[in-house]
Amino acid sequence: MTIQEYISANRERFREEWASLIRIPSVSCQPEHHADMLRCAERWRELLLAAGAQHAEVMPSDGNPFVYAEYHVSDTAPTVLVYAHYDVMPVEPLDLWQSNPWEPDIRDGRLYARGADDDKGQAMIQAKAFEYLVHQNEMPCNVKFIFEGEEEIGSPSLSAFITKHRDLLRSDIILVSDTSMIGKDTPSITTGLRGLAYWEIEVTGPNRDLHSGHFGGAVKNPINALCEMLAKVVDENGKITIPHFYDDVLPIPEEERQMIAQIPFSQDRYNAAIDIPEAVGEAGYSTLERNSCRPSFDICGIWGGYTGEGSKTVLPSKAYAKVSCRLVANQDHEVISRAFADYMQQLAPRGVRVKVTPMHGGQGYVCPIDIPAYKAAEEGFTLAFGKRPLAARRGGSIPIISDFERILGQKTILMGFGLEQNAIHSPNESMDLEVWEKGVIAVTEFYRRFAKSFQAK
Amino acid sequence: MTIQEYISANRERFREEWASLIRIPSVSCQPEHHADMLRCAERWRELLLAAGAQHAEVMPSDGNPFVYAEYHVSDTAPTVLVYAHYDVMPVEPLDLWQSNPWEPDIRDGRLYARGADDDKGQAMIQAKAFEYLVHQNEMPCNVKFIFEGEEEIGSPSLSAFITKHRDLLRSDIILVSDTSMIGKDTPSITTGLRGLAYWEIEVTGPNRDLHSGHFGGAVKNPINALCEMLAKVVDENGKITIPHFYDDVLPIPEEERQMIAQIPFSQDRYNAAIDIPEAVGEAGYSTLERNSCRPSFDICGIWGGYTGEGSKTVLPSKAYAKVSCRLVANQDHEVISRAFADYMQQLAPRGVRVKVTPMHGGQGYVCPIDIPAYKAAEEGFTLAFGKRPLAARRGGSIPIISDFERILGQKTILMGFGLEQNAIHSPNESMDLEVWEKGVIAVTEFYRRFAKSFQAK
Repeated sequence: MTIQEYISANRERFREEWASLIRIPSVSCQPEHHADMLRCAERWRELLLAAGAQHAEVMPSDGNPFVYAEYHVSDTAPTVLVYAHYDVMPVEPLDLWQSNPWEPDIRDGRLYARGADDDKGQAMIQAKAFEYLVHQNEMPCNVKFIFEGEEEIGSPSLSAFITKHRDLLRSDIILVSDTSMIGKDTPSITTGLRGLAYWEIEVTGPNRDLHSGHFGGAVKNPINALCEMLAKVVDENGKITIPHFYDDVLPIPEEERQMIAQIPFSQDRYNAAIDIPEAVGEAGYSTLERNSCRPSFDICGIWGGYTGEGSKTVLPSKAYAKVSCRLVANQDHEVISRAFADYMQQLAPRGVRVKVTPMHGGQGYVCPIDIPAYKAAEEGFTLAFGKRPLAARRGGSIPIISDFERILGQKTILMGFGLEQNAIHSPNESMDLEVWEKGVIAVTEFYRRFAKSFQAK
Repeated sequence: MTIQEYISANRERFREEWASLIRIPSVSCQPEHHADMLRCAERWRELLLAAGAQHAEVMPSDGNPFVYAEYHVSDTAPTVLVYAHYDVMPVEPLDLWQSNPWEPDIRDGRLYARGADDDKGQAMIQAKAFEYLVHQNEMPCNVKFIFEGEEEIGSPSLSAFITKHRDLLRSDIILVSDTSMIGKDTPSITTGLRGLAYWEIEVTGPNRDLHSGHFGGAVKNPINALCEMLAKVVDENGKITIPHFYDDVLPIPEEERQMIAQIPFSQDRYNAAIDIPEAVGEAGYSTLERNSCRPSFDICGIWGGYTGEGSKTVLPSKAYAKVSCRLVANQDHEVISRAFADYMQQLAPRGVRVKVTPMHGGQGYVCPIDIPAYKAAEEGFTLAFGKRPLAARRGGSIPIISDFERILGQKTILMGFGLEQNAIHSPNESMDLEVWEKGVIAVTEFYRRFAKSFQAK
């Protein structure tokens, strides 16, 4: 039975299993979903066993548990370690969803739900490619699965866990489906990821909310102060002003800039798709360079004072922001994290107190495109999508990829099947069902090609 | 019976009546309290009738109803129009209250509740001074009461209402208790108020929240944009940068600056009371000048992006702020309102759209200190507090006072009995009960002195 036939014969079951994951609201950053994390891990354990794993277990960690499963072929076969995550982002604001985020809704060839893509949908691609090869008795690799439940909050328990279980997780390559392609007709493999640093800032003015008439003009307003500080972090040319911020940034090689320029891209369509008057960023770089090879500074959230209906006049006691930098090779997120915290203290206006709390962070990553595992992935995409995938750096961060390299000593192949329009992290997240099925085909082929190149060694 | 004896004999009843007002959560800016507005107006009608009014009614307006009551002595007696408001500010954040804001709690000689001072407590001072003189059959003035229910949202219905009922509201002076004294031992009468302009700003970037990794650096973040814009409104010297903002600002007369310098004031105690490292404001002015005679710009509220627990990375679609300026003589709030809206469009960075919605506004006010009504108030304070009150400009805004002058053709005497520590608009609002009783004495004396000076004319 070909993989296409297998998918056709099992399509409904695949979707039902996928739905069973989506129905568990495993939002890692919201404490009220704590029990859902355990339920989701347990559900994955069942699904991986049913897919053919010889052993599967839910393993405790310092945070949410990990799901581990394995399938052993032979001691001479190569070992592939498949990483995914079962946690998802919050769904707020709920009123912007056209259907229940916790129940798959199929419209126009897409499955809509939180986690449809990131990462429940993509993890299901891995599970079903694995299932097919095991079912056919054609799995040429030893396979280990490790699924975590804290990716969306920065994987706080991962590095301790993989350090502790380094022997169990030993492999010849790591395989991850958690990234996007350039387009449905422009398959690509992610060869670079940006790093991340994230902070929460608290600015304290007076010890209580004050009447802005009685105090305004004489007492520094912490929201004014916060805006003044944050406005200084990026200059008029889109350059980040944190001292020494660019010291370790590697320039984009000219050949890579030329490759980026060849990626099909319409600035007008890009602007229209997200309805912006124009795209704005660091001077001297294109949009595709800005969002993948250059660092950025975004205020992810801000709040303070009166935010209800009407027009309450108040000089508030506190103001807060959550801010992040995307980092690129070779920036170190811990160095940047300290530099930013120092910079905020330096920028703090007189009359307020500033506290900066570093949240999660991670290093960037670059994958060489001449290793056998990358070639195997390239051939998988070529078979499934009918054209050779482009190697492309992407703007997102999977901080753990550099941890894998550091702790487990292996590179990671990022066989991602997302699309920009999947709207991950946003309302109405979705997955293109045709791409999903091609993904299963591509991963199946990866196993075959990787085993072959490994034997040839 | 002296006024002191009357207060002693009726103290418990006064507090119970006062409590009956506090128990009605008449928050004008929160639509869920709509019915409470009507209940509170009706309760005032009952209380003013009980206090001795010959007639009282709840009168409809375009917004919340007005309470009108009157007491007629003779056609030759002067007529005093007493204005107050029965609406209050929201109580959020509730967890900072040490007792239920909707139930008076007396601790250490203070009554704690929302509206304890502003303005239910101060309006009760007016009602009880009136009641005493009527009860004694010694009221020398015709009295009209007009209480509104929209003061905290900028009195949107007031000017139409008083225009329509100009004849009904005809008077020889307007009397308002809705301001504060410099201190419990430094009685003062407010002779100036700042004006107000208030806006809501909406900054729109992309049409949906975006993944900050995939878009960060290439798409202008609306929160970054909002911070950049707002940071430019006040310069490093504390000057407001809105074009032509200071064109109409009258300099503070040197003699008034000298008077301000004589007000008992400790910058250290001020800083300690609100726990700020230092007081900061416009260069070249003292704290007391900054918060009363000079304009200010405060961000009253700001929000956008992810503000929940944890560290969600997002490039949000929208960012919002509520901002206000306190204005001084002779700034026109409508001129300033337009100038600010234009300025925001001018400051809007490329890549975002900016919408500025003017909310409520009002003109500032200055009261002459040589008119008979002011002298009568001064004598009232002197009798009640044992020392002559200082004339002082205050930083708050009662935009309607200038409307009264414009529409009803009369000056307003601001016999206010608040104190800074009453924390109006904040959690744990309170009223000093000793000051409250002295207030009743002062207002009683005002009626007597004013009638006398009026007859002498």
